[in-house]
Amino acid sequence: MAKPHTIRQLNPGVLDSTPSPSFDRPPESFPADEYIRRIDRFRRELSRKGLDGAVVTRGVSRLYLTGFESSAGTLLVDAAEGAVFVTDFRYIIMAEKALPFAKCLLKKTGGADPAQAILKKWKACGYEALDAKTSVDALLAKLPSGVRAEAVDAALGELRSVKSRREIAALRRAVAQNDALYAWALPQLRPGMTEWAARAVFRRGTDLFGHGESFGTIVCAGANGAECHHNPDLTVIGPRDPVLMDFGVLLDRYHSDMTRCVHFGKPSALYRKVYGIVLEANRKAIEAVRPGMTGEEVDAVARNHIAKAGYANAFGHSLGHSVGMEIHEGPNFSPNEKRVIRPGMVVTVEPGIYLKGRLGVRIEDVVLVTKDGCEVLTTAPREL
Amino acid sequence: MAKPHTIRQLNPGVLDSTPSPSFDRPPESFPADEYIRRIDRFRRELSRKGLDGAVVTRGVSRLYLTGFESSAGTLLVDAAEGAVFVTDFRYIIMAEKALPFAKCLLKKTGGADPAQAILKKWKACGYEALDAKTSVDALLAKLPSGVRAEAVDAALGELRSVKSRREIAALRRAVAQNDALYAWALPQLRPGMTEWAARAVFRRGTDLFGHGESFGTIVCAGANGAECHHNPDLTVIGPRDPVLMDFGVLLDRYHSDMTRCVHFGKPSALYRKVYGIVLEANRKAIEAVRPGMTGEEVDAVARNHIAKAGYANAFGHSLGHSVGMEIHEGPNFSPNEKRVIRPGMVVTVEPGIYLKGRLGVRIEDVVLVTKDGCEVLTTAPREL
Repeated sequence: MAKPHTIRQLNPGVLDSTPSPSFDRPPESFPADEYIRRIDRFRRELSRKGLDGAVVTRGVSRLYLTGFESSAGTLLVDAAEGAVFVTDFRYIIMAEKALPFAKCLLKKTGGADPAQAILKKWKACGYEALDAKTSVDALLAKLPSGVRAEAVDAALGELRSVKSRREIAALRRAVAQNDALYAWALPQLRPGMTEWAARAVFRRGTDLFGHGESFGTIVCAGANGAECHHNPDLTVIGPRDPVLMDFGVLLDRYHSDMTRCVHFGKPSALYRKVYGIVLEANRKAIEAVRPGMTGEEVDAVARNHIAKAGYANAFGHSLGHSVGMEIHEGPNFSPNEKRVIRPGMVVTVEPGIYLKGRLGVRIEDVVLVTKDGCEVLTTAPREL
Repeated sequence: MAKPHTIRQLNPGVLDSTPSPSFDRPPESFPADEYIRRIDRFRRELSRKGLDGAVVTRGVSRLYLTGFESSAGTLLVDAAEGAVFVTDFRYIIMAEKALPFAKCLLKKTGGADPAQAILKKWKACGYEALDAKTSVDALLAKLPSGVRAEAVDAALGELRSVKSRREIAALRRAVAQNDALYAWALPQLRPGMTEWAARAVFRRGTDLFGHGESFGTIVCAGANGAECHHNPDLTVIGPRDPVLMDFGVLLDRYHSDMTRCVHFGKPSALYRKVYGIVLEANRKAIEAVRPGMTGEEVDAVARNHIAKAGYANAFGHSLGHSVGMEIHEGPNFSPNEKRVIRPGMVVTVEPGIYLKGRLGVRIEDVVLVTKDGCEVLTTAPREL
C-alpha cells in the first residue's frame, strides 16, 4: 500500500467544530466585474459572428455568465445593449439581488413572455443547441420569419475553456482540497470494508473539504478496477487487493478530479508492471503538453506509450477532459480532438490499462496549461 | 415553534455505527422482471404508434427501462425484438452483468456504431426530443431517407407517471425516511444558526436516512421565505423568526419532497393568518384529489381558496408536481395542466403565500392517487 501520509485525522462527526465549506458557507460567486467581463466577451463574440444577440437557456451557461444559480430562467444577451434575465416567480427576488449588471424581468405563469419584446428586435439570433430539442425548436419557431438563427455552443464553450485568473485560483483551491481529502480518506480504508463503505468515506470527505462531490465517487476493489467506471457495490476489499479510487471535491462550483490506485499486501508482478506503464504514460503526456498542440496529439503520447508496451486494446477511453464549472468540459485529450490547447486551460491526464477479470489501473492528475507547458495542480503521491 | 417530537437523536458523526443506506448499501434496482415488464409496455406502445422501434438516449429513461445507471449509452428498443444496449469501453462489462434482458454491444472509440445495423431495419423510428438538440439532430440525420421519425417523450412520460407496485413501495420508503429526517433535524435547529448551517444538518441527514439529497435543500429564515426557492445563505435565524424548509431524501433512486414552516418565538398575527390559509389550501386540495380530474382542476382548488382569502398574487407557482426517478415529473398540479390524474400517480401538494420583504409560507406533502381519492404519504406534523 502507498506510504501512509502524515495527516491530521479529522473526526468526521463533529459538524460544529470541523471548519468546512459545506457547513460554514455556501458556494461563493466572484465579484460582479468577473461576470460583466464574461458577458462583454460574449457580446463581442456575437458581434463578430454578425448576431444581434443570443438566448442563453442552459443552467450552466447562465451560471457562467451571471454567477447566479437557478433551475429556471433565460438570459438574453443583446450584443449592443447587454444582458436581460427573464425568470419566474420563484427566482425573481433573488435574481434582482444577484444580478446588478442585468435587467431582471418576471415571466408570470400563463402570462406574456417579456423575452419576446427583445427577440423581435433581432435579425440574427444565437441559441444553445445543447439544450433540449423540444425547448430549442419551440424557441426557433417563435422567431419572426426571416430571422437567421445560429448555434452559439462552440463560442460559449471556447470562452469557458480558457479560465480567468479567478477561475484558475478557484480550480487550484478545489484541487488542493481534493489532495487533502485523499490524505484524510486513505488511512481510513482497510481490507474488510466494502467498496460502498469506502465510497462513503470519500463522499463524507467531500462535504468536509468542499461543497460535496464533483461526481459520484468510484471505488473499485480487485478485479473490479477493470470496469473503468465501476459503480461501488458490496464487494469487500480483500487483504491483498488493489483499490482504484476516482473522486473529486466540488468547491465554489468548480470541480476537481483525481484517480489513484493503492494496493493492500504485495502487488503481483503483473500489477506492478501495468502500474509502471500507466504512470509513465501519465508522466510522458504531462511532459509533452504544450500550447498549440491539438487534444489528439497529447492523447497520442500516452496512447502510443501504452500501445508500445503491448496494451493498445486495454486503454479504451480518452486521456483526459477539461474541468471547470462542469466535470466534463472541452477540449479533451482524446483521439479525433482537433481543438488546440491554450494557456489557461485546465485538463485531466488519466491514462489507464484495464484487463477484464484481472485488474485495472488509472492515474489521473489535473494540469493547468501554461505559456510553455503545463503545471500539475494535483500533488497527491503517485508511488505504488 | 412546532411541538418537539419524540425522536432518537442520532449522532451524526459515527459513520460505522449509524445504520444508513448511504453508508451501508448502494441504491438497489428492482429484480429483472420489473424492467422486462417496463420494456414490454414500451414496446406495445411503440407498436400502437406504428413505430418499429425507438432510440432511448436520456440517462433517466435508460435507467427507468433497465435499472442500470451510466453516464453514456443508447438503448435501442425494437418493438418486435426487444432491447439492445450500446455503450462504450467504460461501461460494457458492468452493462453485461446488469442487463440480462438486453443484448449489450460495445461502441469502440472512433469505431463503427453497432446501433446503425439495428436502425437501418426500421421504417418508423422513435426518439427522445427532450435530449440535446445537437444529439437528436445528429441521430435524425443518420436515419435513411424515407424513415418516419416521431418523438416518444410523451409515451415514456406516461409510462413513468403511473407507478408500479414496487415503485410505490420505494416512494413510500423514501417519504417515510424524509419524515424521519425531519424529526431528527428539527430539534437541531436553533436561533443563532445560519440558514447554511441548518441546510448542512438536512444535507447530512439525507446521507444518514437515505442516499443523499433529492435536490439542494432550501432553508429560509424570516423574510427570506418570500423568495420561494431561496438559496440558503449566511442569514442568521433570529430568536423570533419563522423558518421555511424544503427538502427530500433520495432513496434507491426515488425522490421524496416536503416543505414545512416552523416559528421560533411567537408568530405574528399576519403569519398565523397566512399559515392557516396555506394549510387549508393544502387540506382542501388533498381532499379534492380524484382520479379523472385534470391537473389544473386540482390546482384550482388551492388557488381559488388562496384567491378568496385575498392573496391571489402571492401564490405564483404551481400547486405540485409528480415525483419518481426525477424530482420533477409530470403530470403537474398547475394552471393549464390538461393531463388527467390516475391511480398510482405520486404527486406533491404545495400551496404557498409569499409576501416580499415580510414572509413566506409553503406546506408540501406527497400524495399517492388511489382509486377514489388519494393517500397522503407524508406524516410529518403540520401544526404551527
